[in-house]
Amino acid sequence: MTDADAILAANAAYYQAFATGNFAEMSRIWADDGVSCIHPGWPALIGRADILESYRNILHSQNRVRIAHHDDTVIVAGDEGRVLCVEIVEAAALAATNWYRRLDGAWRMIHHQASPIAMVEDSAPRSQRLN
Amino acid sequence: MTDADAILAANAAYYQAFATGNFAEMSRIWADDGVSCIHPGWPALIGRADILESYRNILHSQNRVRIAHHDDTVIVAGDEGRVLCVEIVEAAALAATNWYRRLDGAWRMIHHQASPIAMVEDSAPRSQRLN
Repeated sequence: MTDADAILAANAAYYQAFATGNFAEMSRIWADDGVSCIHPGWPALIGRADILESYRNILHSQNRVRIAHHDDTVIVAGDEGRVLCVEIVEAAALAATNWYRRLDGAWRMIHHQASPIAMVEDSAPRSQRLN
Repeated sequence: MTDADAILAANAAYYQAFATGNFAEMSRIWADDGVSCIHPGWPALIGRADILESYRNILHSQNRVRIAHHDDTVIVAGDEGRVLCVEIVEAAALAATNWYRRLDGAWRMIHHQASPIAMVEDSAPRSQRLN
């Protein structure tokens, strides 16, 4: 498996944990140190404790949102790799960045940011790998 | 100068280039390869050509926005460092991530994303360094 494939798999696991409300898996996905997260409309969360608390609240909410992702584009450089993708959350489109670092052989998330896309979106899903 | 100080200086240079409409400096700040950018409301731009074209349009616009930044928080790991900060653009608050990579001794930007903050903002500016 190439690094790009492994990062795409990590990215799919992130959205799977989100979609199934699996907090234990979400906790495993996030790295221990040097982490940051900006949910849509939120200020930056910095540090594992605050970030996991936010996911606990989101995943355990009665009104947990449906989420899908497409158009994953991977950029790999050594032990750092990011995925740019489009999230579809309850019919709204968001531009998301998911950043991973290779730690003890596993790609763990070190940063997430999602922001609303105001522009009309191209309707043709596509994928790219830049590595 | 510590790595954190150098990254904060690079971040200040980014906003200075933005504020003064200095496209040549903005072009120097961005790295050559492996770059991505998500402006507020935009889908992801990937690759130096598309990103610089967007800055050329933004910086040369008759309606160029005023921009300030505060609450810079630095996270450094080896040759990668990011700044989380709050941008104030025409009285609107945005949560921004500016990611830098050390290339030939200089911290060059490899990723930028800014997204609107919907929540009420804490009025007390502060800075943190995590490294």
